[in-house]
Order: sequence, then C-alpha cells, then structure tokens
Amino acid sequence: MSISRAASTPVEVPRGLAGVVVTDTELGDVRGLEGFYHYREYSAVELALTRGFEDVWHLMVHGALPDPAQRSAFAARTAALRRLPDDVRAALPAVATASGRSGPLSGLRTALSLLGASKGFRPVYDIDADRRREDTLAAAAVVPTLLTALYRLGRGLRPVEPREDLPYAANYLYMLTGSEPDEAHARAIEQYLISTIDHGFNASTFTARVITSTGADVAAALVGAVGALSGPLHGGAPSRALDTLDAIGTPDRVDAWIRARVLAGERIMGFGHPVYRTEDPRSRMLRGIAQRFGGGLVDLAVEVERRVEAILAELKPGRELHTNVEFYAGVVMELCGVPREMFTPTFATARVVGWSANILEQAQDPKIIRPAARYVGPVPPVAVPTVA
Amino acid sequence: MSISRAASTPVEVPRGLAGVVVTDTELGDVRGLEGFYHYREYSAVELALTRGFEDVWHLMVHGALPDPAQRSAFAARTAALRRLPDDVRAALPAVATASGRSGPLSGLRTALSLLGASKGFRPVYDIDADRRREDTLAAAAVVPTLLTALYRLGRGLRPVEPREDLPYAANYLYMLTGSEPDEAHARAIEQYLISTIDHGFNASTFTARVITSTGADVAAALVGAVGALSGPLHGGAPSRALDTLDAIGTPDRVDAWIRARVLAGERIMGFGHPVYRTEDPRSRMLRGIAQRFGGGLVDLAVEVERRVEAILAELKPGRELHTNVEFYAGVVMELCGVPREMFTPTFATARVVGWSANILEQAQDPKIIRPAARYVGPVPPVAVPTVA
Repeated sequence: MSISRAASTPVEVPRGLAGVVVTDTELGDVRGLEGFYHYREYSAVELALTRGFEDVWHLMVHGALPDPAQRSAFAARTAALRRLPDDVRAALPAVATASGRSGPLSGLRTALSLLGASKGFRPVYDIDADRRREDTLAAAAVVPTLLTALYRLGRGLRPVEPREDLPYAANYLYMLTGSEPDEAHARAIEQYLISTIDHGFNASTFTARVITSTGADVAAALVGAVGALSGPLHGGAPSRALDTLDAIGTPDRVDAWIRARVLAGERIMGFGHPVYRTEDPRSRMLRGIAQRFGGGLVDLAVEVERRVEAILAELKPGRELHTNVEFYAGVVMELCGVPREMFTPTFATARVVGWSANILEQAQDPKIIRPAARYVGPVPPVAVPTVA
Repeated sequence: MSISRAASTPVEVPRGLAGVVVTDTELGDVRGLEGFYHYREYSAVELALTRGFEDVWHLMVHGALPDPAQRSAFAARTAALRRLPDDVRAALPAVATASGRSGPLSGLRTALSLLGASKGFRPVYDIDADRRREDTLAAAAVVPTLLTALYRLGRGLRPVEPREDLPYAANYLYMLTGSEPDEAHARAIEQYLISTIDHGFNASTFTARVITSTGADVAAALVGAVGALSGPLHGGAPSRALDTLDAIGTPDRVDAWIRARVLAGERIMGFGHPVYRTEDPRSRMLRGIAQRFGGGLVDLAVEVERRVEAILAELKPGRELHTNVEFYAGVVMELCGVPREMFTPTFATARVVGWSANILEQAQDPKIIRPAARYVGPVPPVAVPTVA
C-alpha cells in the first residue's frame, strides 16, 4: 500500500528536475566545461586506456582498484557467474520469440527479471551490503550471456555457452559470434565498455536509485533501468551515426551532404552533446581506437568530423559542434563485428556495472525517493464522509 | 548512449525529493489535513461507493466518466483484452517456477515485460495518444490474468481462463479461485480496488513517469513501477495487520497486547499514516465494507481499532493514531477469500490503472526527467587528454 508524502510546502524546481541534487555520490562526476569525467577518483578515459573491465567493475562496486590477487579472485568470481540457471535458460526461447517484436532491450528486461526471481534476490534493506553486492554481481555477470543468447535465438542460432577463461569483453564477443575474437577487437570493445560504465546522473541510473529507495530487490532496480535505457531520449540510437556515414558513402560526397543538412537546419546524427563544451572525451578516445584499425570507414568518419566542424565555422560562426560518444562508438563496434541492432545492448553490458554501483550506494540510505505533483485540474468539493 | 544534464547551478532540495514538485497533474490529489483524496474532480471514496471499476478506469485514462454507451463499449473492449497471447501463456510455467523463489510481484514483473514485448509496444513518443492508451489498456487488462495464473501454477493448479462476461473485479476473483464469486464479495473487492487506483504521487507512480519521460514503451514503465511497488517501503505488507489480529486472537486479549506494545514503543502494524491527520478515508470506507459482512474477525478488528485509540489517548496524550488503509483492506480481502500472499498483488491489479493514467499524462510532456547528484568523493586531477 502506498504511503504518500507528508503534507508540506511544495518546492518549485526546474522542469524535468534539471540540476536538482537528489543525492550525494562517491561514484563519479562529469565536468562538462573541462571535457573530463571520472569514476571515483580516476579519470574514466585513463582507466579505459590502462585497465581491464574487471578492474573498473571492482573499483565501482568495491570502492577501490583491485591489487593483482584481488583482481584474479574477482575475475574468477564473476566469470563463474556467467552461466544461466536452468530455468532461465529454458525460458529464453519464449522470451526471444516475444522480444523479436520489440527489440533486444525488451528481451533483456524480461530475462533479467526472470533471473532475479530465479536467484531469489531479496529486498535490499533485508540483506547486508555484501549480499547486495553479490546480487549485483550475479545480475551483471549474466547480461552478456542473456543478450547474446537472445540475439542468436532470434536468428535461429544456438546460444553459445560462456567461457570462464576469457575476460568479460572478449567473452561477450565470443558468445555473440561463436568464435574467439582477436585480441585487438576484444581490447577495443573492452575500452569502449570501460568508458561507458557510468556518465553522471542519467535517467536509467536515477530510475535504478528510485526503485532501490523503496527497498525492492536488485533485479527490480536493474529491470527498471533497462526500461529507461530503452527510451529513445536516453538510450539513443548509436547506429544512427553509422547510418549517416552510409548515406554519405564516399569522402568526395561529404561536403555537399553536410552543407545541405546544415543549411536546412537539420540535426547531424552523432554530433552535439548537452554537457560538453569541448570535445567529448569519450569521442576523442574512441577515435584513437578506430584509428588503430584504420580503413575506409575510419577515414570517412574522420573526414566527416573534420568537415562538419569546418563547414559550421563557415556557415554558422561561433557555433561549435563536436562528435558525441555515438559517432565513434558506432565506428568501433562496426569494426569489431558487433551487429548494429546490438549497439545499445552492448552499451547495456557496461552500464549495468554503473547501475550496480548506484544501487549499492543508494541502498545505504534508508530514505525513499518520493517527490510531489501539483494538482491543476478542476477543484472537487470536499464531500461529507459517507459510510458505505 | 546517455545524454547528461546541462551544466547549471545545482538546486538544493529536501532529502528524498520530499515536497519537490516534479510535474503538474490533472489526475488527482490527496488532502491530508481534510482526510480527503480525489481522482480528477471526484471524491475517490464516492466513486468507490457509487461506481464500477470500469467507470473509474475510463475516468482515469479517458479523462471523464463514461455515459452508459461508453461504459458498455469500454467494458467490452477491456474484457476482450484479458486473454493472454499464446507465447506469453506458454512461458508462464517457467516464470511461475522462478518467481516461486521471490514472490508474486517478481512474477508479474517478468510476465508483464514479456507481454509488452509480445504485443510489440513501441516507444511512447513514436505513437499517438490513442495508441498509447490502447497499449495501457492491453497491459492493465491482463494483470489479473497474469497474477492469478502465476498464483495457481505455483500451487500446481491449472490457470483459469478469463471470462468476458464478468466485470474486472469479479473476473479477478473468479480466475483466482476457479468459481464465480458471490455478488457481495465481488462488489467489496471492486470497491477496494477503486479506492486504491491512485493516491497522490508515490514511488511507483514516479518510477513509471521517469521511465516514460525517456520515451520508452508502456511496458517498460509499468514493469519499473511493479519493481518499485515490490519494495517494502512502498508496497508494504498488507497482511501484517492481519497477522497482528491473529496474534491477538480474541477481544479479551486486546488490552494487554496493545498496552505491552505501546509501552515498549513498538509500532503497531496497520496504524499510522504520514499524510492524513484525520482518519484515512480509505480506512473508514473499508471498515464500512467489512461491517456489511460482520463476524468475529470484523468484531476483533473494530475492537482493536477502538482500544488502540483509547490506550494511546491514555498513555501518550496528544498523539493521535488511526488505522491506515492496510488495516481494513486486509480484513476485507480475508473475508472475500483472497489469500494473504495475494494482498499486494491485488493492490497491483488496481494501481496499474493509476500508473497507466500517469504514463499517458507524462507522455504528453517531451521533457526527460533527469536530476543531478553531487560528487563528494576524493577529487581527481583533470588529466591532460591522452590519445589512445
């Protein structure tokens, strides 16, 4: 039964709660003016350049980077959690059939909900911090298994069983394609995944925290977050930027294509970000990764980026526009053999770690998150109470 | 990919967003000082006393009470939606097995997610208001079917197919027990359901609105709301008040039991509400319904209520304490043959209509709900950007 807010003076705030501080966090921040974001006290980009996914996962949920022994133990622990319980595995074909009609994130939403039930997750306020962390590990570790199984089942392919000897990102690519990825692809995807674990306070993270604040279990919070990520205003469509590159086709057509769009006032997919005034630091890193591979697609992407900036400087002086994370993330995933419909799901395999850390932090605060609404409809009379 | 908040001055607000106005609403309000709450311009209690569930469902999602022709059409339309798609029906035994480990709401969470995928719900900003409303009707209409099927499967019983000729509440009891309920029970549950469709801005309603604000589909929002409702701080445990009555046992033991609890400073389940300074209007109505049935349990409940108030007045003068909605809701559901583990799920069969109305209202506003957090951890240095 719902218990509603205490009667009090309403507090007026900006629409959409923009800039409204809901909570303190030790998980990280985005410094838009400086083109910098961090996880705890570390630059996220430096972590992506120098660390493995499991290191950063450990950092987020345990609060510190692991030493070598902790790293091995954590990698083994999470790898052992990749296998699906039998009842979840048995239900996946039915989930895949249904979710074929509405996309892979709706399949993940269902499968993760089932997994949480199967594991018997308990309300977060009924268990201690260690047990909560174990629940987040069990849920996050199976996300790549669930997503790749649903993807393959949707194409009439057999799911590929997870391997415990591969790191998180390499195992994801392995389960997706059925063959062991080469090292350069696995490392590129790993770096992308690290860079996208968390990024300030966003709608899916907030959803996970609101659900957690009711005391619900870890799966309830993660399933809500997957739902929020499936919204186009949040999860976006990382394949759109790639569709733009396809539409342009060759470097000689860049100028005409861009000029036409800019003059028509159309948005160019993959460009522009509401936070960063500078280049998006994720974009810069992902361009570097793409350039390690090289090739026609990368050349085209770099040319498009260069020309968009130049044409804007010419046609709309003073309006800077940089690529956002979608632009080179799409290029990198394409180069590594990730199918376009799996771009947002791939993002989810990383962000689930950020959600996990946020759930664990929120669960330390026993205060429910419950704002208010202002009634603006016709005023009803207060009726004399009636007895039934 | 997440797009984060624009850099702006942080806005400080009360913890848990208490009293923070997130949105305007025309759906209703709770007037705690007056002991009154309403749906649109009508007293909720009056609606429960004078109307059927379908009338109020129509009021919430269409904006007005139906005339007789609209009522028949709406009842027929929603009754026709009660039957499950074959793929969802086929997956339910697996869902029931898994959710046996963590309660009926986790089963509903999974099954509703699957239903949304099966129906191919699309992002709310990609469809018009009529299509969105149809999606909410399709999702809400199957909630009783899903919950009762999961409940019965969990006990080795065959699910009971929905009947289109029964009203919403009667059909729910029919599918739960397998036999047509008598009119008094069906009407009592219908009145309870109407009274609990909405009640101010609560955590599950807010969750549904946050997810909707990303543009996600109706199922994503409802599944998140079910997750929030499963949190003990929100969904509560309506069976606890009944457990209290069981523990007391007979009217002659009321005084000693209550005195011991009050003197020990313990909370008495089923009493106290943070909003109402007066009697909870739902509680008053539900007591009336219980007294229509009468019997030992009702006599005991009334005696406990009377004595708690008297003993508090004596031992803690000035501290008023009234029964909340859980107290008599539990009594009414027990009298109508609803098993205790289905108390919160029964609540969900009504609240899904409130969530639906909130989703439809939120979808008219294209602004994402995305607040901020304040980083309070160790400050990282801004690194010189590195190229990968």
